[in-house]
Amino acid sequence: MPLTPEQKAEIEAQRKLQYTTRRATVSAIEEILYQPFDVLDNGFIRVIDYMGDDSAIVQAARVSYGRGTKRTRDDQGLINYLMRNAHTSPFEMCAIKLHVKLPIFVARQWIRHRMANVNEYSARYSVLDNEFYMPPIEQLSAQSSVNKQGRESSLDTNRAEQILDLLKSDASRSFDHYFQMLNRNQEGEEIVPGETALARELARIGLPLSTYTQWYWKIDLHNLLHFVRLRADSHAQWEIQEYARIMLNILNLWVPLVTKAFINYRMGGAHLSEEGLSIVRALIAGEKIDSENLEMSPREWRELKNLLHLD
Amino acid sequence: MPLTPEQKAEIEAQRKLQYTTRRATVSAIEEILYQPFDVLDNGFIRVIDYMGDDSAIVQAARVSYGRGTKRTRDDQGLINYLMRNAHTSPFEMCAIKLHVKLPIFVARQWIRHRMANVNEYSARYSVLDNEFYMPPIEQLSAQSSVNKQGRESSLDTNRAEQILDLLKSDASRSFDHYFQMLNRNQEGEEIVPGETALARELARIGLPLSTYTQWYWKIDLHNLLHFVRLRADSHAQWEIQEYARIMLNILNLWVPLVTKAFINYRMGGAHLSEEGLSIVRALIAGEKIDSENLEMSPREWRELKNLLHLD
Amino acid sequence: MPLTPEQKAEIEAQRKLQYTTRRATVSAIEEILYQPFDVLDNGFIRVIDYMGDDSAIVQAARVSYGRGTKRTRDDQGLINYLMRNAHTSPFEMCAIKLHVKLPIFVARQWIRHRMANVNEYSARYSVLDNEFYMPPIEQLSAQSSVNKQGRESSLDTNRAEQILDLLKSDASRSFDHYFQMLNRNQEGEEIVPGETALARELARIGLPLSTYTQWYWKIDLHNLLHFVRLRADSHAQWEIQEYARIMLNILNLWVPLVTKAFINYRMGGAHLSEEGLSIVRALIAGEKIDSENLEMSPREWRELKNLLHLD
Amino acid sequence: MPLTPEQKAEIEAQRKLQYTTRRATVSAIEEILYQPFDVLDNGFIRVIDYMGDDSAIVQAARVSYGRGTKRTRDDQGLINYLMRNAHTSPFEMCAIKLHVKLPIFVARQWIRHRMANVNEYSARYSVLDNEFYMPPIEQLSAQSSVNKQGRESSLDTNRAEQILDLLKSDASRSFDHYFQMLNRNQEGEEIVPGETALARELARIGLPLSTYTQWYWKIDLHNLLHFVRLRADSHAQWEIQEYARIMLNILNLWVPLVTKAFINYRMGGAHLSEEGLSIVRALIAGEKIDSENLEMSPREWRELKNLLHLD
Repeated sequence: MPLTPEQKAEIEAQRKLQYTTRRATVSAIEEILYQPFDVLDNGFIRVIDYMGDDSAIVQAARVSYGRGTKRTRDDQGLINYLMRNAHTSPFEMCAIKLHVKLPIFVARQWIRHRMANVNEYSARYSVLDNEFYMPPIEQLSAQSSVNKQGRESSLDTNRAEQILDLLKSDASRSFDHYFQMLNRNQEGEEIVPGETALARELARIGLPLSTYTQWYWKIDLHNLLHFVRLRADSHAQWEIQEYARIMLNILNLWVPLVTKAFINYRMGGAHLSEEGLSIVRALIAGEKIDSENLEMSPREWRELKNLLHLD
Repeated sequence: MPLTPEQKAEIEAQRKLQYTTRRATVSAIEEILYQPFDVLDNGFIRVIDYMGDDSAIVQAARVSYGRGTKRTRDDQGLINYLMRNAHTSPFEMCAIKLHVKLPIFVARQWIRHRMANVNEYSARYSVLDNEFYMPPIEQLSAQSSVNKQGRESSLDTNRAEQILDLLKSDASRSFDHYFQMLNRNQEGEEIVPGETALARELARIGLPLSTYTQWYWKIDLHNLLHFVRLRADSHAQWEIQEYARIMLNILNLWVPLVTKAFINYRMGGAHLSEEGLSIVRALIAGEKIDSENLEMSPREWRELKNLLHLD
Repeated sequence: MPLTPEQKAEIEAQRKLQYTTRRATVSAIEEILYQPFDVLDNGFIRVIDYMGDDSAIVQAARVSYGRGTKRTRDDQGLINYLMRNAHTSPFEMCAIKLHVKLPIFVARQWIRHRMANVNEYSARYSVLDNEFYMPPIEQLSAQSSVNKQGRESSLDTNRAEQILDLLKSDASRSFDHYFQMLNRNQEGEEIVPGETALARELARIGLPLSTYTQWYWKIDLHNLLHFVRLRADSHAQWEIQEYARIMLNILNLWVPLVTKAFINYRMGGAHLSEEGLSIVRALIAGEKIDSENLEMSPREWRELKNLLHLD
Repeated sequence: MPLTPEQKAEIEAQRKLQYTTRRATVSAIEEILYQPFDVLDNGFIRVIDYMGDDSAIVQAARVSYGRGTKRTRDDQGLINYLMRNAHTSPFEMCAIKLHVKLPIFVARQWIRHRMANVNEYSARYSVLDNEFYMPPIEQLSAQSSVNKQGRESSLDTNRAEQILDLLKSDASRSFDHYFQMLNRNQEGEEIVPGETALARELARIGLPLSTYTQWYWKIDLHNLLHFVRLRADSHAQWEIQEYARIMLNILNLWVPLVTKAFINYRMGGAHLSEEGLSIVRALIAGEKIDSENLEMSPREWRELKNLLHLD
């Protein structure tokens, strides 16, 4: 369960408060402010704050004194131009702050994006909730034989259930022992009267990587797009993809013109190497490619054919 | 003249627009949003946007679900604690976006703060205004003989006026030539019909370092405090101090609890070395210091005595 | 066991290779290059490469053409000056690259230092070794009642042994199950013939936070000093302190003049707040402090008294 | 003249010193260590230090214990894979330190690359040399009418000479006045006995943007490649391209396998948008493109046709 009734009430209380502002404001994002988007079995993403909108990018690009043009078409044109030519500074002028609940193994991939600000819930300072991630059974997939860091088809049901049992019983047992070491139950009550509690920073070291943590995370729009491009990609681990897909939805509510350009120029586009480009030119000119004489590896050639819808 | 009537009108038009938001909002900063604070003879700082407030720091520090406590006293206590113990992450959760007009030699010092986002007016793309910085006459000071990178007392009036004349006539001439090379006057009209204009990116290389530029600049609160501490310091060049002092005023409007803690723990505080600390302990214990036998340099010892209000 | 015989042989083979270079070279660090310094029960730090030395800082500070002065005393003076006045750029001109093996819960604290380069062993791509961290029994300490994120005195032996048993049996069982899910034993052989292996990226989510990981980590000297100051501090978790202390030893071999200045101005020094400074001045002047009327919290006052060796 | 005889002697003295090291060493770069590569009329780039080589990237990617494979073919394959899939971390494990002399307007573009370390010669602390950049006459080009931030064909000789005269006489006069304000000539002697010298930090504000400055600059390989890709590009200002081209030569001496991959996958490659990609697929399938019905702008379509060598 991602949120307790008390947490939901806190969120609702905050959502009721409204203020007047002169700042760039986006009604579609105001609509969902503070509300959790569920991710995985116990995780979520909540938008806590945001700075700027599509027009703010245009305004920054022009170093202008006022809001300037309000014609959406002109703004889209300039945003396309900036995205296409990798003029990234204006996109850095927008920022978003999220509250995210996520398994630790996802958090470890996430934190590799250094150009962001993060404040994580401290398991040295506070006791963790008894919450860990269990993959949906259809996600229990075999190791890919092609891609050394990927998944293949789902396991058969028996094998999958056996594995889920192992994961679940191990995680449950670790959490039971965690609370024993702290000498408190999940309600915060002492278990054995007078028994000494182990320091929290030590008790947590036996918990599994599937344990949920949470953090406040702030990032500028340029770096968020970079995050989404890498983490919504099919080569990323499925669990972090789930978060990246929610972010793409949030992007579309917040900065729809940027999101449109981002999908065209980044997500849906592709990078050709010098050799790939000369192959494309040859193909367009109607020439045959002799794949024996390519510099590129067989894998790269296979990927290029896929990209170009050949064979 | 920092702003043209057209620019002032654009700002006023933007200030008239008001929106409803659920975001953390600070009325004192809304009051001054978009308005220029004059700095030096032709520069300014304008607040374009901001994210967060004092409470947002508390909320991030607790990774909380709602706004939490509204008691100012508790918030001040936690903020003091965070500032004192250099727990910087929660301060990174607030950000501010400024529009700044500043001389290029100041911009060159400013940009050394890398943990910020900047989009500068491009003199490759656009023509610069005929505006350069002339120091106020009382700021025309002699080279300090003690501090190799500082100023001393003001020059006598004759020498100062002679220098101002040199600076002013050189800058004026350079701007005249800049417009000649572009073959346009300041109103944008051609000077010599049909004469070819030199590329803007080349024409500007003869302009002086006192030329004004401008940029949009976004920075998180932690890094802004670092900027202000270094640049409002008496060792910084006076011209950038003028900008830093305005920022300190803006900080006080925006995050008064943070600003109070910042002044107590950073601006007004001091760092003692290990040897300095042992001297302080000895002095408190009533011992005499034999300055001959100190490890520290005479300059360091002089500075320590100043700090402690000794003799 | 931190290293296998094969790994030791690889290290020895690399240590045998020697080259001629014109670069700044430090014989004391060459002496220990590639060799592991043991940390905790299974971890280590190895120096893989370094750039610069004490003189390189002086050279960078002067933007000089040659090596300049070779007089250690002058270099120490300039380095002291730079450290004391927080002129950090010259220290950024040196860098070090380490190979570190460390428990995941330590890695999660470590990675918060963003101004570094890291390449971690991927448990999506490769199988992890059966190695987890078990605290030495005297480190199994009670939760501190004063410091919400710290330890107090050691637990009594019975309680400590009971806890070690829980940690050890849980970790062992998780690793057994990890290999079952991968259908391979620690020698890499199939366990059940023909059984499908779960994807590595999923199998690892049940492993404990005490599991060892490893990475290559490169950082400039300025940011390394910052790391050591924070992580060798008594408020850091003991396990990361152990790594930081090894780094301090490495620093002393690599850049002894910088390390001396660092210990005097950073590690051994202290920061006083504005109020703290005025208290110090009053104490030196022989005045009495009325602690009832201080702005600072009782905890801050207690810490100040400790710092100044009062009562 | 980029270097004085004294500076050349200092460099030669340093080049004579040789040491023994166990670090990764590249003989082609040792060969040119400390020697200036001339750039523009008075600038240069000197390699001061470097960390790592092609193999160090492979080693970091594998988090390995020794140097591992020495087969160049395997290394090239892995480096290609890393470059192609934007696995950037291993490239961050190499670094280079340069001493660069460059005009201030170039320095202002350069410094926008924030992921680097820089220590600049301080004109607050020291007196600048009388050296400014004068473009070669064939580079005095007209403002491009197509590209708002570019150059077109060269100016006719008369106009070009007239402009050079303006730039040269203004710069010379500004430097004369600079020395007058400091009351010292270029040899460092007093001009008017007893006249007060203006503070250096003020005297320099009248100097032109063409004035040469210099700095030590350190950057990791990943970020250096990014720099070169942006700054050796034909859209960059010609003057900074000149520096980027020298860097590409240095890269080729230092990390030839990386440079080969970089040229194939980055410099010589191209990025297609989603729409561009579907056009390419249609062209390969022999379809006609109706440019009237494209989403993309006419300019983007023109650039795509150029890229694909269409008509």
